[in-house]
Amino acid sequence: MAACGNSGEKKDSGMMNTGDAAQKVYVAPGEYDEFYAFMSGGFSGQISVYGLPSGRLLKVVPVFSQDAEKGYGYNEETKPMLNTSYGFVPWDDAHHPELSQTDGVPDGRWIFINGNNTPRIARVDLTTFETTEIIEIPNSGGNHSSPFITENSEYVVAGTRFSVPFPQKDVPIDSYKENFKGALTYIKADEPGNMDVSFQILVPGYDYDLAHSGKGKSHGWTFFTTYNTEESHTLKEVNASQNDKDFIAAVNWKKAEEYLKQGKGKKMPANYMHNYYDEETHTATSTEKKEVTVLIPSECPGLIYYLPTPKSPHGVDVDPTGEYIVGNGKLSADLTVHSFDKMLTAIENEEFEGEVDGIPILKLDAVSAGTVSSGGLGPLHTEFDGKGNAYTTFFISSEVVKWKLGTWEVLDRAPCYYSVGHLMIPGGDSKSPWGKYLVALNKITKDRYLPTGPEMNHSAQLYDISGDKMELLLDFPTIGEPHYAQAIPADIVMKNSKKIYPIEENKHPHAVKNEKDVRVERDGNVVRVYITSIRSHFNPDNIEGIKVGDKVYFHLTNLEQDWDTPHGLSIMGARNAELLVMPGQTETLVWEPQKPGVYPFYCTDFCSALHQEMQGYIRVSPKGANVPIKWSLDGEE
Amino acid sequence: MAACGNSGEKKDSGMMNTGDAAQKVYVAPGEYDEFYAFMSGGFSGQISVYGLPSGRLLKVVPVFSQDAEKGYGYNEETKPMLNTSYGFVPWDDAHHPELSQTDGVPDGRWIFINGNNTPRIARVDLTTFETTEIIEIPNSGGNHSSPFITENSEYVVAGTRFSVPFPQKDVPIDSYKENFKGALTYIKADEPGNMDVSFQILVPGYDYDLAHSGKGKSHGWTFFTTYNTEESHTLKEVNASQNDKDFIAAVNWKKAEEYLKQGKGKKMPANYMHNYYDEETHTATSTEKKEVTVLIPSECPGLIYYLPTPKSPHGVDVDPTGEYIVGNGKLSADLTVHSFDKMLTAIENEEFEGEVDGIPILKLDAVSAGTVSSGGLGPLHTEFDGKGNAYTTFFISSEVVKWKLGTWEVLDRAPCYYSVGHLMIPGGDSKSPWGKYLVALNKITKDRYLPTGPEMNHSAQLYDISGDKMELLLDFPTIGEPHYAQAIPADIVMKNSKKIYPIEENKHPHAVKNEKDVRVERDGNVVRVYITSIRSHFNPDNIEGIKVGDKVYFHLTNLEQDWDTPHGLSIMGARNAELLVMPGQTETLVWEPQKPGVYPFYCTDFCSALHQEMQGYIRVSPKGANVPIKWSLDGEE
Repeated sequence: MAACGNSGEKKDSGMMNTGDAAQKVYVAPGEYDEFYAFMSGGFSGQISVYGLPSGRLLKVVPVFSQDAEKGYGYNEETKPMLNTSYGFVPWDDAHHPELSQTDGVPDGRWIFINGNNTPRIARVDLTTFETTEIIEIPNSGGNHSSPFITENSEYVVAGTRFSVPFPQKDVPIDSYKENFKGALTYIKADEPGNMDVSFQILVPGYDYDLAHSGKGKSHGWTFFTTYNTEESHTLKEVNASQNDKDFIAAVNWKKAEEYLKQGKGKKMPANYMHNYYDEETHTATSTEKKEVTVLIPSECPGLIYYLPTPKSPHGVDVDPTGEYIVGNGKLSADLTVHSFDKMLTAIENEEFEGEVDGIPILKLDAVSAGTVSSGGLGPLHTEFDGKGNAYTTFFISSEVVKWKLGTWEVLDRAPCYYSVGHLMIPGGDSKSPWGKYLVALNKITKDRYLPTGPEMNHSAQLYDISGDKMELLLDFPTIGEPHYAQAIPADIVMKNSKKIYPIEENKHPHAVKNEKDVRVERDGNVVRVYITSIRSHFNPDNIEGIKVGDKVYFHLTNLEQDWDTPHGLSIMGARNAELLVMPGQTETLVWEPQKPGVYPFYCTDFCSALHQEMQGYIRVSPKGANVPIKWSLDGEE
Repeated sequence: MAACGNSGEKKDSGMMNTGDAAQKVYVAPGEYDEFYAFMSGGFSGQISVYGLPSGRLLKVVPVFSQDAEKGYGYNEETKPMLNTSYGFVPWDDAHHPELSQTDGVPDGRWIFINGNNTPRIARVDLTTFETTEIIEIPNSGGNHSSPFITENSEYVVAGTRFSVPFPQKDVPIDSYKENFKGALTYIKADEPGNMDVSFQILVPGYDYDLAHSGKGKSHGWTFFTTYNTEESHTLKEVNASQNDKDFIAAVNWKKAEEYLKQGKGKKMPANYMHNYYDEETHTATSTEKKEVTVLIPSECPGLIYYLPTPKSPHGVDVDPTGEYIVGNGKLSADLTVHSFDKMLTAIENEEFEGEVDGIPILKLDAVSAGTVSSGGLGPLHTEFDGKGNAYTTFFISSEVVKWKLGTWEVLDRAPCYYSVGHLMIPGGDSKSPWGKYLVALNKITKDRYLPTGPEMNHSAQLYDISGDKMELLLDFPTIGEPHYAQAIPADIVMKNSKKIYPIEENKHPHAVKNEKDVRVERDGNVVRVYITSIRSHFNPDNIEGIKVGDKVYFHLTNLEQDWDTPHGLSIMGARNAELLVMPGQTETLVWEPQKPGVYPFYCTDFCSALHQEMQGYIRVSPKGANVPIKWSLDGEE
């Protein structure tokens, strides 16, 4: 079909194979995809929801960044969601979507994602696909090794990406080794609306890159990779690549809970925000905490150990049994696999080769289960198919390698176009993978799609892994930069999906549930317009008595109660985004009119054959004018 | 594949057909789509670029709304693009993408799109897929019937969506008939960077809904639909649906040019902005104009005529020959087709049935070419396949109807899921349609895809129209609300696509083209960081001497010169989005640090195996501290 993307070279996919692949990814009109795939947006700050196997973009869920399309971060209800301890921040760098789990299996209730920059963690409610909660991580310099949930969603975790002065203070950068520290943070996650920093562990000033929680036999532990154990602070591409081995940090969080009970936690000052969106009232609130509980490893023996791992390990991945801990040493020739059982024995036998700040360093040969020598270059991430196989991405050699757990033999390899970062198998980091597909998330796109100027979308590749050999099915472009993805069978999420917000449950303080109650109220220079939408009119649609200098709140309640009947509200002259209000919801737009005149407002979502007629006018008079508040629809107040 | 979307009912697509469709839409990995499709984002404010026939989203081009993913509207270079005469507006409602034309055929140089709310028109440069120019329309209440370019891109047009006081002033809303007027605006469009309001025509206070320029024999004319000829101002769904006929306004813009030469234009006050992005300097500038030239129909005979058209016509579409002007009367039982030749004759013979404000109303039977009685309900839009056929969408009966130009007979009909608005055939409103595919843009999605809570993406449907009967191939979800789309064969755009910005052509006033020239300069409390990125370090990466109260400009130049090697810049603690800088580009992030400390910054786009190491630190000291400006990479200044 049309021209070949790769300059000159045709791939050797015979027509037969192409035909098979076409059938395998085609989802006929009106049929549903098999899986929801949730991809991080990376520098977009959001989550993109794709259907698999079609690769169709079902929705972008705004999380950490303003989204004018939905009014997210612009309307009064969601603005507080983007508050941080240092003010309103309209953007973040969203990395790792992580589905909630029950007994180590994704359960489809929520999906969490970390903000790498601010640093934060968000919860998205999968009954509504809306972001309902965001919490800031104190004492951290970025949040990359996060959220990587525990087996029953007890905690999401957050390891500092970069070390910073702890607590933050003005010191010379070259005092790094003396002043800079890391923090590993555990946040209670099992109650919606109540995320809370449970405790932090003070750790050496390394960079904490990725993490995974244990499962099954290793439940109660979390594993974090480190790099820059050199503690360098400049030209890290050279200076942080000196040591032959860095560490995987093994944290016993059950032990941490014991120490907390014993009162070993130290209260330390730390400003951080918790933002929560209440679905009933359709409003968000922000609260700020001033202190955090910190555990010091030297005072808490058994809390944390270091496993030496060659070299600058990126991903750390735990197999479905919980026994194997795979360190993807990006500058290492081989993959290093640790054994959880051997680790426990080594701890018992105190097989240590040293310690750092009270953290024992285990001997590598005492914990090593094996190594995978694949010939691939630049291993980054590993996932599992639940049938005893592992799949590892190699960034430099641009490929996925399939290998066998326990024997470490290489079974298959498939090229990626180009420079693959993360990969994803539905449930592939859980106790029970649905090992049918694999998605490679590629960092370089170049000539894979029709060019779009210097900037190309990133690119995903879908493989069928149901057979012995991986079969490439489809390339599809992705929004932002998906640093990770998770997928789940559709029915698990669908069965709880909400279609509307029942109007009788709407507890928004400024909701209007009946057209009879619409009104415009003035209190000093604050004017509140209680307005409704239903096909195809606003009520009221003529408003007078607004004056320059007023602060006008439009509280729009969408009275519709059918699925997929949103209404929008746009006010000409307002310096804001629109509202896009779902059935039964109330949202608020603030307008501070600048000049006298008569301004149209209209519905922004084509809602009926008479959508173009869904419109009204607001009259703005000069400050001090003697024009009383007046509102109407077709002459009736 | 998986569960059926429609509750219970299976569509009767045999396996053979499904197989055919799968093959027809499948674009194998590494191959290119045949067409670029540009879809408006509606309330997202942007343009989405899709590949056809795959339906894959290739890119979102930010136009009228802030886009945190690309830093658009957040970095210093693009912020001025979103200036209006009443301040910075972070959002608009983008409706109709319109490719530039040469001799009535899309030429792939630029794509224009209207902002319905503010009201504005933007130009996107298709060598870079970046928005390079935005102009505001004065004296308009929204801009819906726009941009609908003329045959050689002489003008883009803008008809007021809603009438407003002209000029804007504080009057009672119920003085509508006395005070409210419309304006039809012509904007010079053929020189990039020089869009300019050429003239406006003052017209009665109707709502001007859609438009199309003439072509071939009707070159030199533009046709605008009107509704609300009742001039109602409240409950329009009823009050603007009273008249049996509204009008299509036929404007002779060649005649307008003559009147302008004769000095018939009146200078009137009107504040409006022109924003232009210079690709060489990578910076945008804003200029404001204070007046506009207005033509008054009563003083300019032959400038404009009204063609009576039943009833509340929405789209007005001109066939490839330029002879037929199709009025899609959304409340009419039939489609009304006017003849351009008959219109000229009727004008010559003065076959008028009246006039409004100096605008002659032609007799319907004198201009009518025929009517299409299809039995469909709610016709909205028509496009053409270049083979003598027309395709019309019917919103209420949810279908596309194919009919024959000249005989008006119905040839085929296909159901749409659900409530189709616009439709698009590549080149389908031009002189030379590439009539292979048809895309229906549906307003209601409901159960067509896996549910995503109360809010579902909108939905497009792709049909093969190469045969006698329309064949449905694919459903794919779309971002925002595509109010229209245009498509063009890939090679026309590809051949001019830029891969990088040559560094030697970078004339940004704060560019650094060589690592030797990086530096940090203080001027009072303004600090400028001249910083570069190249795999995999920033230079400098350690910066000291910044103080609370400073305003720090990070001017990042990306020194890379390979395709698809952007770097990002995120500063922890900054209340802003990141920068995402293409090869050879310079972009600027402003930070006003609030608290002393040492803050990491890092690259946000995974650029190499050592991307995680691409990081630096900035030390912030208290106001007044005696810490001199200092910068380094690995100890060297």
